[in-house]
Amino acid sequence: MKTTHQERGGWIGAAEGRDMDQTRIARAALSRLFEPLDPVGMLLVEAFGPLEALRIASGQAPADDLAALARVLDGAGRGPAATLQSGTGKAGGGLAAALERWSPRVAHLAPERDLETIARFGGRLVIPEDAEWPVGLTELGTDGPLCLWVRGEEPLPDTERCVAVVGSRDATGYGLSMAGELARGLADFGVTVVSGGAYGIDGQAHRAALTSSGPSVPTMAVLAGGVDRYYPSGHEELLREVARRGHLISELPPGAAPSKHRFLKRNRLIAAMSMLTVVVEARWRSGALSTARRAVDLGRQVAAVPGSVYSANSAGCHGLLRDGAMCVTEAKEAYELIAPAGEGLPEERDTPTKPHDGLSLVDLMVLEALPVRRGSQLEHLAVVAGLSEAEVRAGLGRLSLLGMAERSEGGWRRTREA
Amino acid sequence: MKTTHQERGGWIGAAEGRDMDQTRIARAALSRLFEPLDPVGMLLVEAFGPLEALRIASGQAPADDLAALARVLDGAGRGPAATLQSGTGKAGGGLAAALERWSPRVAHLAPERDLETIARFGGRLVIPEDAEWPVGLTELGTDGPLCLWVRGEEPLPDTERCVAVVGSRDATGYGLSMAGELARGLADFGVTVVSGGAYGIDGQAHRAALTSSGPSVPTMAVLAGGVDRYYPSGHEELLREVARRGHLISELPPGAAPSKHRFLKRNRLIAAMSMLTVVVEARWRSGALSTARRAVDLGRQVAAVPGSVYSANSAGCHGLLRDGAMCVTEAKEAYELIAPAGEGLPEERDTPTKPHDGLSLVDLMVLEALPVRRGSQLEHLAVVAGLSEAEVRAGLGRLSLLGMAERSEGGWRRTREA
Repeated sequence: MKTTHQERGGWIGAAEGRDMDQTRIARAALSRLFEPLDPVGMLLVEAFGPLEALRIASGQAPADDLAALARVLDGAGRGPAATLQSGTGKAGGGLAAALERWSPRVAHLAPERDLETIARFGGRLVIPEDAEWPVGLTELGTDGPLCLWVRGEEPLPDTERCVAVVGSRDATGYGLSMAGELARGLADFGVTVVSGGAYGIDGQAHRAALTSSGPSVPTMAVLAGGVDRYYPSGHEELLREVARRGHLISELPPGAAPSKHRFLKRNRLIAAMSMLTVVVEARWRSGALSTARRAVDLGRQVAAVPGSVYSANSAGCHGLLRDGAMCVTEAKEAYELIAPAGEGLPEERDTPTKPHDGLSLVDLMVLEALPVRRGSQLEHLAVVAGLSEAEVRAGLGRLSLLGMAERSEGGWRRTREA
Repeated sequence: MKTTHQERGGWIGAAEGRDMDQTRIARAALSRLFEPLDPVGMLLVEAFGPLEALRIASGQAPADDLAALARVLDGAGRGPAATLQSGTGKAGGGLAAALERWSPRVAHLAPERDLETIARFGGRLVIPEDAEWPVGLTELGTDGPLCLWVRGEEPLPDTERCVAVVGSRDATGYGLSMAGELARGLADFGVTVVSGGAYGIDGQAHRAALTSSGPSVPTMAVLAGGVDRYYPSGHEELLREVARRGHLISELPPGAAPSKHRFLKRNRLIAAMSMLTVVVEARWRSGALSTARRAVDLGRQVAAVPGSVYSANSAGCHGLLRDGAMCVTEAKEAYELIAPAGEGLPEERDTPTKPHDGLSLVDLMVLEALPVRRGSQLEHLAVVAGLSEAEVRAGLGRLSLLGMAERSEGGWRRTREA
């Protein structure tokens, strides 16, 4: 989120504390006034900063100023506004429509009360002007959130150390198990596991990350409603624990209800705050896929966990793999994708070595020609192996050193171990 | 396989028939004299053509000629010879060593008898000079086979219409099922399914392809021993059926025993004769992976079938996916990879449409704000949705046209279907 030069100048200096409070209060108010991704609202904030944007959006600007502004905004607004236009409806539109859209909510604005509420829940409001603002969110540009309502004591983790683990609500046992292993393993590597708090994969990811004794904040739940609302209700205990030991985050103010369009918009925050999004299980159409798409749009990495072709819950993952997502089967493989160069590279997989390993082709050809029971003469071995007698003789020497060939009454044969 | 100008000139013309017979007999003999990929042998054929190569390799060239030749070959031979050098043994080496290697087998040469044998099995010898020589094999260069011993009446299929379906011998039910669906589906598309005749995935691929009533030769088994030997023995019936309705192929003459190094070398033929290699199930180390690697070396496409992360039989497939293999879950997806442009593109997957599909964001926001039971007034809906009253009014109009919103005693509400 860019701030204007004047505003940024204001809070670096003597008046910093007070201006910062004003900015925080203005953003708190705007987060209740605007739905996430309100294009005109975001343009106002971009152009004038949150204080002036609030004055305009709440109808306190003189009519003449508004008229002049409307002409400018309606010209400038096409880019970002277009991101919100889908189908026949148009959430963008001119300033007049926007003011009409916001006006019913003006009477309900009480940002100080909202800030008291979040404080009562042991939380705070984090704004783009704060040092702990996640760097990953800045890449959303004017699609970024106005602020983050945060519960959790630690500073917000670096985007570089965050991995989203997401997937179906109606997960299978396989998906839950994989989500648990990945999330726990990632947290053990010091990664913060980001997810959406939902039933199924999301909840399992939070739960497993909380079992880690890794060095970082284990997990962060990004909600589609206020952080004082536990949604889904069956996850109240889990989300309380996430708030205690990790972070509960929302761009919506306390009390805001989660709704379908807010879930869709929420997914962009999960993607933007994570270096990598891992989809554990997803049906062919799934919210997790929208998170993955947002991650791709942002140039972030996307990985998917493979599963049975016969499981509808893996169909979305296989689609992602076909579209170029990385195949991930264990936490180490996911961590490798975000680890700084040289750190956390997976070791060579352990594979049982076989006695034939490392044999040269000639020795292998001799070994193959050797009978198991009755011994065979050198000349015969040469014919069978298609090698010269000298080559067979040398090969037999090496194989007998390795304990794989031995001389018996009738000639050479393979040992029992070879 | 290149032939010298003189030789090619010889059999285009009046003497074609006889020279062609001579060439065929020479290649038949050489395929018994040389192990597959014998580097010196392949150099001789490359440089002098099969007739002269046979004369030299069987020790019929004057000693002076051989000495001169040895100096030339040992200089030129480093490239191809290097492909066979692994570990400490060296199957290449100079001409003298090669002659010593070949000499034990010279006494056993009887190419006419071998040709009679293959004819008795309803087969024939196909050589690079034949029109039906698979174009894919030419890309192997001097690593190509000297000839193919073929059972099966149809001409060999075009490489462009061949797909290898390979995998573990100790396949799971999942792997067998996937192999069957893929192979049957590919054969239905008119593809020839190439595999190695082994137990497990290979056998299932042949078997399923044979159940197809597709327009092409359904399947081709490339063996590591003579095509008169049914290996593994439990597949005798299957391989007989493949010979009857498809092709049994080997670069080794009748009677040749399969052995480990011949299996490894055989895999290059499966890869080279197929546009695409699909690995259905493979452990972390598996012959199927060597086929896939050869396919990659040849610039052919490689695909893998995903499976449970907990199945060791899918670990090799997941490794391939991580290395960039295409994820394939059904025959159509595999066919798409080799289909000529515009042909066989998978249709959009059927997904049940939901009533919310296609709604604009504004309409969705209005719908979300609508209560299910008691109706709600316009002003209240505007506050809940964060929209202007005009937007809500327009949205309600569209939603009621779609049968998703209705007016009730207390105001607007969602219909039961929405």
